[in-house]
Amino acid sequence: MPGQPDLPDPAHADVDSMLSRKFGREVANYFSGSPLNRVSFLRADHGFISKAITHPSTSFLLLNDLAPLTSDPSHLAYANHDDVRKLIGNNPFEKTEQEMISAYNSSITLPLVLFLGLDETKKDGFEHGIYSGTPFFAIDVTPKGSVEKEAQSVIEEMKKRGLAFAEGRLNMTLNAPEAAIFAQARALTDWNARNPFCGGCGQPTLSINAGTKRVCPPTDIASLPTVQGGATTTEATPRQREACVTRKGISNLSFPRTDPTVIMAVVSHDGKRVLLGRQKRWPPHWYSTLAGFCEPAESVEEAVRREVWEESGVLLGRVVIHSTQPWPYPANLMIGAIGQALPDGEKIHLEHDPELEDAKWVEIDEIEEALRVGTSGLGEAAGSEYKEGGLRLPPATAIANQLLRAVVGGFLDAGETSKI
Amino acid sequence: MPGQPDLPDPAHADVDSMLSRKFGREVANYFSGSPLNRVSFLRADHGFISKAITHPSTSFLLLNDLAPLTSDPSHLAYANHDDVRKLIGNNPFEKTEQEMISAYNSSITLPLVLFLGLDETKKDGFEHGIYSGTPFFAIDVTPKGSVEKEAQSVIEEMKKRGLAFAEGRLNMTLNAPEAAIFAQARALTDWNARNPFCGGCGQPTLSINAGTKRVCPPTDIASLPTVQGGATTTEATPRQREACVTRKGISNLSFPRTDPTVIMAVVSHDGKRVLLGRQKRWPPHWYSTLAGFCEPAESVEEAVRREVWEESGVLLGRVVIHSTQPWPYPANLMIGAIGQALPDGEKIHLEHDPELEDAKWVEIDEIEEALRVGTSGLGEAAGSEYKEGGLRLPPATAIANQLLRAVVGGFLDAGETSKI
Repeated sequence: MPGQPDLPDPAHADVDSMLSRKFGREVANYFSGSPLNRVSFLRADHGFISKAITHPSTSFLLLNDLAPLTSDPSHLAYANHDDVRKLIGNNPFEKTEQEMISAYNSSITLPLVLFLGLDETKKDGFEHGIYSGTPFFAIDVTPKGSVEKEAQSVIEEMKKRGLAFAEGRLNMTLNAPEAAIFAQARALTDWNARNPFCGGCGQPTLSINAGTKRVCPPTDIASLPTVQGGATTTEATPRQREACVTRKGISNLSFPRTDPTVIMAVVSHDGKRVLLGRQKRWPPHWYSTLAGFCEPAESVEEAVRREVWEESGVLLGRVVIHSTQPWPYPANLMIGAIGQALPDGEKIHLEHDPELEDAKWVEIDEIEEALRVGTSGLGEAAGSEYKEGGLRLPPATAIANQLLRAVVGGFLDAGETSKI
Repeated sequence: MPGQPDLPDPAHADVDSMLSRKFGREVANYFSGSPLNRVSFLRADHGFISKAITHPSTSFLLLNDLAPLTSDPSHLAYANHDDVRKLIGNNPFEKTEQEMISAYNSSITLPLVLFLGLDETKKDGFEHGIYSGTPFFAIDVTPKGSVEKEAQSVIEEMKKRGLAFAEGRLNMTLNAPEAAIFAQARALTDWNARNPFCGGCGQPTLSINAGTKRVCPPTDIASLPTVQGGATTTEATPRQREACVTRKGISNLSFPRTDPTVIMAVVSHDGKRVLLGRQKRWPPHWYSTLAGFCEPAESVEEAVRREVWEESGVLLGRVVIHSTQPWPYPANLMIGAIGQALPDGEKIHLEHDPELEDAKWVEIDEIEEALRVGTSGLGEAAGSEYKEGGLRLPPATAIANQLLRAVVGGFLDAGETSKI
């Protein structure tokens, strides 16, 4: 359990376990490793969530059009309850979920208030039964709908304090634990903003479960909107809405969407070379591992083989999953694997699915050197030791880098000694 | 690449590779291992798909309310182009995708026609450039909308031939390669049926990319539907629809949804016991591994630790991913892992998230015995050697069974010798 007090960091400290002896240390990729305990089962607990949101120790991460509030490029900044009260009210969880659904009014904008979890290492006085720690929430302060002015006012107050909403998707400068907090906040805020309507019936939906579920209410206090837009008026009694399948039993449409993707370091049959590819829009000499979306009814291992064949023509035998990385742009789960080419399957053919500008086999030594001197983010310069013309690779925050590091570090050998 | 001709089965034949020597044989779980090459890059190729659907060798798998057409409980049955022409027309891909979008008419029901892939081992004369094999499609014959009668007529013709639409979610009796074909057809048919409206704007959507993408067309030939339903009439010129964010760039809302889930065999710190749990609705003595949904911005390893702690109170150190299984009910990707408890983290506590009726540590020997005599589907009886009161476990078609088999078979040891 991440953030559990008085325990070694599960990803790193317990290397004396059987699984660690056999598989080596666990790689905790950037955007994972959150210090928060999500206590997901408490999200629908009216008493808990009402107490947490009004507690003086509670930290609120603000997102403006998905950009998080920061104090500097490495650190998030947090607001407190007083700062956000004008936007979200004293307690947006005052009503039970059933009462919220019954009172649903599609003409009123309810700003998203998302419970992220408890930081159990910080004991600032918040307790609820056996659970304690500092509660963390995220709030969508994007100015819109009926709360546009209130949101704008919160944003301006934060800017007056010298804080900034950090924009830019690939600017991965946050410290690792806060990067994981931001990833959770961004992924769920985006999902809510992206899905204001029900895919099953087309009617507007309501956020419940403290930001982690959207339901299609059976009634609406707002009168019927005209289909081409325009003003709506409110009525005294809720009208019945059209029937919707998502109201019967459990529907995945009510829950956040995460898109599994595969990303793979492919080694030649003899283990001496690695397959890399590049897209046309990348800087010169910049290559990475192959990657793609996992399709419905495909195992990860099959998706790895399909994507490698479609993009490069290379045929794989055994595929082994190495580690995973959440990627909140907008909702990917990157599943990193190592695959080995079949003896007669190493010929490169780029014309099946012409996604790549180039793919090539690279000697392990060259990968090792590039991991040392040629890594950087896509928009950044390589390090000072890099020589123009040499191979460039993604930075250590990318799982592609970690997969290549694993191959160079002896993942394919019986031993686990790392060379880098 | 699955189904590639003249190649060993990648999952099993190439055990002499480095990855196989280090990690053992790859487990190909039930519902994976499709014999079809999806050639996903050809789905939007107008010429290819038109030629494939009208070819005399093409096989059509029919789904009625998601139940597949079968000849017996172990085998799918297929229709041919003549059988389905009355429902889908001679060639539903006659127009290009751009023409289909421009001609969009929300008052006309277009039955879902889904391209599954090519069976490259069957050479019945279909060729397109360097690609050849028997094309496979799935068709949703559920009677509905403006094609209700035509669909009913196709269904009745199939029943006259003695074929049956096999219902029942857990009836996993299909042979493995066809189970994978069915899984692909079911997952994508369900996704299309479940998402007739755009989550971004609430307007009805159109299936393109041969059943693997849904777009929100900018115009509609049908006149405005009244919001409470009722008859619609058609007009001579398409009307503009409301703006929608999914029309700008690429949106994940246009693509099929797959929900990553985690399922894990948890071993005690000394490796001698395994943690099992049971739900109240299961038969007596029936247990399985713990499982749950992966949340947004969580690595698989973190999701495994969170779910185990939430459901059982047990704290895990190292987590290693073992294999994966597509699960088309409706759209899960099950990611199977082995986790090891921390030395002081083995105490069971069921009251965090009270999903389980019971959880307990079971000696490896008892698991081994139950894998031999006590496995069955949830609704079925255990084998003849089973003694009442003994542990019961899921069948070999479930990844839970394969994970337990891996633990018993020496996954935790340096060696790879299987005991069962």
